[in-house]
Amino acid sequence: MKIYNFSSAPSILPAEVYERAAKEAMNYKGKGVPVTELSRSCAEYEEIIDSACASLRRLLSLPKGYTVLFVAGGAIDQLPAIAQNLMSEHKVADYVITGQRSKAAEQEAKKYGDIAIAAVSAGASPPYSTIPELKRSSFRPDADYVHINYNSTIYGTKFPQIPETGNIPLVADMSAVLLTEPFDMSKFAFVYCDCEQNISPSGMTLIIMREEFLTNSKDKAPTTFSYKKLAERAANIQTAPIFNIYMANLTFEWLESIGGIDEIKRRNERKASLIYDYIDSQSYFTAPVDKKCRSMMNVVFTSNDSSMDKKFIKAAAKEGLINLGGHPFVGGMCASIYNAMPYEGVERLVSFMRKFAQENPKIDA
Amino acid sequence: MKIYNFSSAPSILPAEVYERAAKEAMNYKGKGVPVTELSRSCAEYEEIIDSACASLRRLLSLPKGYTVLFVAGGAIDQLPAIAQNLMSEHKVADYVITGQRSKAAEQEAKKYGDIAIAAVSAGASPPYSTIPELKRSSFRPDADYVHINYNSTIYGTKFPQIPETGNIPLVADMSAVLLTEPFDMSKFAFVYCDCEQNISPSGMTLIIMREEFLTNSKDKAPTTFSYKKLAERAANIQTAPIFNIYMANLTFEWLESIGGIDEIKRRNERKASLIYDYIDSQSYFTAPVDKKCRSMMNVVFTSNDSSMDKKFIKAAAKEGLINLGGHPFVGGMCASIYNAMPYEGVERLVSFMRKFAQENPKIDA
Repeated sequence: MKIYNFSSAPSILPAEVYERAAKEAMNYKGKGVPVTELSRSCAEYEEIIDSACASLRRLLSLPKGYTVLFVAGGAIDQLPAIAQNLMSEHKVADYVITGQRSKAAEQEAKKYGDIAIAAVSAGASPPYSTIPELKRSSFRPDADYVHINYNSTIYGTKFPQIPETGNIPLVADMSAVLLTEPFDMSKFAFVYCDCEQNISPSGMTLIIMREEFLTNSKDKAPTTFSYKKLAERAANIQTAPIFNIYMANLTFEWLESIGGIDEIKRRNERKASLIYDYIDSQSYFTAPVDKKCRSMMNVVFTSNDSSMDKKFIKAAAKEGLINLGGHPFVGGMCASIYNAMPYEGVERLVSFMRKFAQENPKIDA
Repeated sequence: MKIYNFSSAPSILPAEVYERAAKEAMNYKGKGVPVTELSRSCAEYEEIIDSACASLRRLLSLPKGYTVLFVAGGAIDQLPAIAQNLMSEHKVADYVITGQRSKAAEQEAKKYGDIAIAAVSAGASPPYSTIPELKRSSFRPDADYVHINYNSTIYGTKFPQIPETGNIPLVADMSAVLLTEPFDMSKFAFVYCDCEQNISPSGMTLIIMREEFLTNSKDKAPTTFSYKKLAERAANIQTAPIFNIYMANLTFEWLESIGGIDEIKRRNERKASLIYDYIDSQSYFTAPVDKKCRSMMNVVFTSNDSSMDKKFIKAAAKEGLINLGGHPFVGGMCASIYNAMPYEGVERLVSFMRKFAQENPKIDA
């Protein structure tokens, strides 16, 4: 039985990436050494990092003046580093709260400066089911930066557009959404994301930042939080997670081979439409998220009956449609349909949803 | 040609580990899902972490009262976390300097408390070629802990025994040396190491700590520095680097299968004796490290002629003996002969050294 994995994290990578890794990772470029054993002083080690950075720049049409960093650890590890690096002497930053994750970012930043909440998602049950409208006046004019979480894997929301912050640098956690559709990267001062969705195995964070923020970290911040030091090549202060970067490079090359970000957007829209259109066409399942803020990656839905939801998740798994359970904060279901999810996987899911709805009438229906 | 990789980092893992990973990692336990894609909410994800912890506990005969953590990132990322977690209110700690790495640890800790250097390795050229003698009186009686770096991969030294610190908790960076011979773990309060030698691919750190230090991090320390939070299972605040933990688990199982730490010590001693005995038996190559402090893992040696050293490194690579260059701080050669290095690799190296010495007489010899 073909398995389709709808896990939000860690999550699927393209089959082509695994096939290539299986072929070459154990004997990298015929050197007789696995990728994992490339010495940090050898040319191939540097080449992998250079190649991944170059491919990413092409995919994102990254303007000049941005630095790309691959750092071991999760995006959450960057929260204190961002606050300590990007706040100026007067230490003022504004955070937009659209879920658990942006709340955690705000809580962490509060340790280091004067942090204000610029706006919070409306919605109580389920919470955070929309994205607040933001105006230039939502932010303090003297803020060192505005922080947002562009896509919520838990709540299934996504910013409908890049918020306008004027002269204030925009910092965005783009986990799960970077590389899934085109973004005007010049609008962002600092972007970071977990690589475990859409890029590589768990345990690495991608950072894209304007070079002007490459300062040494201030005060008593840890050395490994200094983006300047990290940019002088991670190898100088620590070994890079080279296997993860290798896998990221394969994923980037796969994206380039299929036609880049425009093509992946076309595919992603087609998959998301298939499931959202089905949900909107019937009443058994509903998607609680404000339509204009729906995530294209994380489709949150429910039968509005928690025991039926549990039955659905279990029955789906038996059919090879696994990890459809929603996050405990939300309940219900979450189908994560990342770049690597084939259209057939979503077709299989929608067929199963139809069948399940027919075979399991609700008591009060 | 069979390649033997003497890289100090990232470094070799047992062939058996790769063979098993190649067989099962793409379809973990027949679930149809690669290890890298196991959702953090699925049972297999937790099982891998539990299994790795249990196997490690058996291998090290770890006494009760210790917690095991696998954290994404390098050992260097732990330096500020150790200082911020382990120092009490009065913030006093003593550091022993035996190389670049312990110096970096001391520099980082100085940001957070009253740090004293208890002792420094003697040796100027090359530096750090011995381990200082330590007495109970080397340390301040009110120190919250003593920090050492047990083995230096750069300088090729190793503590001849665990230093006696009395009631003062001993904190040790055991990178490259943990799991290579038995240690009385009850003597340590906190042990951490890069996993890129002897455990798993680069990008993960192993921490073994007395439970009494599982406090929330103090003051304005980052949340991800809180060992208490991390011990409540990394999954709660961040996704674990599950592929690395999976590989660590395979390495631990391999160690158990060959007979555990006593057997690996026997093998390691046999390999180290082969090369050190050869070096001591002739005058072409010398090993600069104080004999009683020689690392069993990182064999530093030189022909005492830097251009000849370069020729040696290049010629050895042509014979499949790769990454023998010493660290730029030391020059010369460094043969890292970790757990996974077969005896044959060291035999090949020693044969090559003999041949090279015969074929390349020194001008002034």
